[in-house]
Amino acid sequence: MGTLPEMPNLNELSFDPKVIKKDFPIFSQNRDKPLVFLDSGASSQRPTSVLDAMDDYYRTTHANVHRGVYALAEEATNRYEAARLKIGNFIGAPNPSKEIVFSKNSTESLNLIANSLGHGYLHAGDKVVLTKMEHHANHVPWIMLASYLGIKLEFIDHDEQGRLILDNLDQTLDGAKVVSLTLASNVLGTITPFSQIAQVAHSYGAIVVGDASQYVPHMPLNVKELGADLVAFTGHKMLGPTGVGVLWGNLKTLESMPPFLGGGDMIADVRLESYTPNELPYKFEAGTPPIAEVIGLGAAVDYLNNLGMQNIANHDRAIMKIALEKINDRFGDTIKIYGPKDYKERSGCISFSFENVHPHDISQILDLHGVCVRAGHHCAKPLMRELGVAATARASFHIYNDEDDVDALVEALAEAQRYFS
Amino acid sequence: MGTLPEMPNLNELSFDPKVIKKDFPIFSQNRDKPLVFLDSGASSQRPTSVLDAMDDYYRTTHANVHRGVYALAEEATNRYEAARLKIGNFIGAPNPSKEIVFSKNSTESLNLIANSLGHGYLHAGDKVVLTKMEHHANHVPWIMLASYLGIKLEFIDHDEQGRLILDNLDQTLDGAKVVSLTLASNVLGTITPFSQIAQVAHSYGAIVVGDASQYVPHMPLNVKELGADLVAFTGHKMLGPTGVGVLWGNLKTLESMPPFLGGGDMIADVRLESYTPNELPYKFEAGTPPIAEVIGLGAAVDYLNNLGMQNIANHDRAIMKIALEKINDRFGDTIKIYGPKDYKERSGCISFSFENVHPHDISQILDLHGVCVRAGHHCAKPLMRELGVAATARASFHIYNDEDDVDALVEALAEAQRYFS
Repeated sequence: MGTLPEMPNLNELSFDPKVIKKDFPIFSQNRDKPLVFLDSGASSQRPTSVLDAMDDYYRTTHANVHRGVYALAEEATNRYEAARLKIGNFIGAPNPSKEIVFSKNSTESLNLIANSLGHGYLHAGDKVVLTKMEHHANHVPWIMLASYLGIKLEFIDHDEQGRLILDNLDQTLDGAKVVSLTLASNVLGTITPFSQIAQVAHSYGAIVVGDASQYVPHMPLNVKELGADLVAFTGHKMLGPTGVGVLWGNLKTLESMPPFLGGGDMIADVRLESYTPNELPYKFEAGTPPIAEVIGLGAAVDYLNNLGMQNIANHDRAIMKIALEKINDRFGDTIKIYGPKDYKERSGCISFSFENVHPHDISQILDLHGVCVRAGHHCAKPLMRELGVAATARASFHIYNDEDDVDALVEALAEAQRYFS
Repeated sequence: MGTLPEMPNLNELSFDPKVIKKDFPIFSQNRDKPLVFLDSGASSQRPTSVLDAMDDYYRTTHANVHRGVYALAEEATNRYEAARLKIGNFIGAPNPSKEIVFSKNSTESLNLIANSLGHGYLHAGDKVVLTKMEHHANHVPWIMLASYLGIKLEFIDHDEQGRLILDNLDQTLDGAKVVSLTLASNVLGTITPFSQIAQVAHSYGAIVVGDASQYVPHMPLNVKELGADLVAFTGHKMLGPTGVGVLWGNLKTLESMPPFLGGGDMIADVRLESYTPNELPYKFEAGTPPIAEVIGLGAAVDYLNNLGMQNIANHDRAIMKIALEKINDRFGDTIKIYGPKDYKERSGCISFSFENVHPHDISQILDLHGVCVRAGHHCAKPLMRELGVAATARASFHIYNDEDDVDALVEALAEAQRYFS
């Protein structure tokens, strides 16, 4: 949660997105129109170094990990565990070899948390606090737990700009056993005052869970400073491969939690009718893990570290500023932009709609101009309902996007507006 | 479950493992000694075509699936769904577009089953029947359910050759609500009389679950002929990538089951305190799926289909025969081989031990000769206890293994025996 300076423009950044683009093979493909990819909030692209790391692993070193005493299996295990340390260090985990658990995606990490806390820690009537802007991944697991266990869900409200309202925080968090919220909204772009909420939640003895899926790709994260007990994020939004997610937890919390999935690797012993869990982190890693994917995510972290997360955050902030300005300048009151007006309060994405035009139609027109934006409910249906819409269009950014991409978006939006007016 | 002829030797096969090896880059690496990889039961190697399919997807087509209306996202979705159909057709699924669910590995597929059946179908006192040779992946989830719900576990016994004893089958299966067993043991190599057991289990109204992890890589599987309601298997043992598993289920069973993981894609609607599940198969695919991995698994299925699963089964059978004969001829009573004596009753692997030599020591000596075998409990601790050992050594085979690999194993074993005698 480092301090971020105001960024006047993209020209003062430490890296050039146009140069960055060359590392990402998808931008070098022959196409009718250049690819203006503004859907990294759904899934980012990958640099060659990530693809090469996985390919090299498969070609030279693959064997199942933790299971063989021969050299090839040991080398595979070493690469897998080295990636764990790298990813742990990337988020400032105090004990990366034990606190980093690999899952298949953020969704599994969050389900692991809800399911495990549902076996022993949470009971009927217990209060779990969320926000109304959670991704379904940090909402449906708790709804399922409510239906199975009878826990009660409460919600921290937000204002019309999508900023969390902290006025009644003590009242909302008093008695909460779990407080689980996003660090950055995948719809509104809102950067939440996570640490402040975590501090109050802890004062009431709650376990604090962070969904960092939209945060980790764009900003430096230090889990010690963050003040969460458990944090989930995913590989494919941070330049890594599909098929791998991460759960970080502090030792005390992880040690108190029973296993989620049962199977190989997560046991110390099994008898016909009983089992003893393995130690951390293997207790939570049942079955053959996504070995190549973890190694690929390690390479993604190398790539991010090489640019520097503070520099990446500066880019994120600069592009938020420019995109908000340019869209507002061009479309004024004819466009509705959701989320904070101040670019410094947001990250990663801009959701918007034109009156009387369905976001899907906007996305299709934009696609004709090579501009990829997402249209839909963004896996946040309760928020959509509150916004009074079924869907929004969303442009989301990453390090390979520059001012030209913003201009292409604005021009294509102008076309769409003309087309439908 | 096709008919398999007796195979006298490897020379009569429709493909040559030495030619096959050239498709697998790991065998072309420069090493001190040629790689004799006999641990495919833990994880197979991958042909270039699988690596290329994933690489090409990332380089040309990646975007999140089911979520974008722009062309790139549609193309990604098309590739993902085409792989689903291919994999469904590979196992004879009657409705591949709805009956194939992607998970991260067999373990998740089996946990999905146990967890989902534990919410509504299974109650305290209900009987679930397993065998005593299950992999932990098909054992620990049921132990966990027993501890949470109070279901009772019963077990089908096996004889001293690791063949299931069917004498008391009616008594064991009478009243069972679930019967879950492996199609082929990962330790003993036993091919179980799955269809026969399924028929009896169905006569008592049980849901029948098959763990096909060790079967699908080696033999043609037709889920209709098999007679299971639910079948789990994994990609990385069948030439596919890590990070992807499969659950097949018939429509009736899958439709009756509540979701497992909650999150994006698995919902039709979400309100603040309730949700409506999506239709099949998405109901069981929460969050961003292992997109590239599913596409890679599709390429692995192409590769297997190209060779022909019946031909692959012939190879499996031939190498079982030759390996059993050569090991028995060379070591006679000084080696203990676990599992069926008749090669026609087994698939994929041979577990063994020498008296007074720890399997880990065998594996290490073999490794000095470039021969990779696994030593350990093979995620089957209850079976190990019954065999009266803490571990065995296990040589497991795939299409790239030939008689030379068997000879290398035998020579290295002879070295190990000399070393420790």
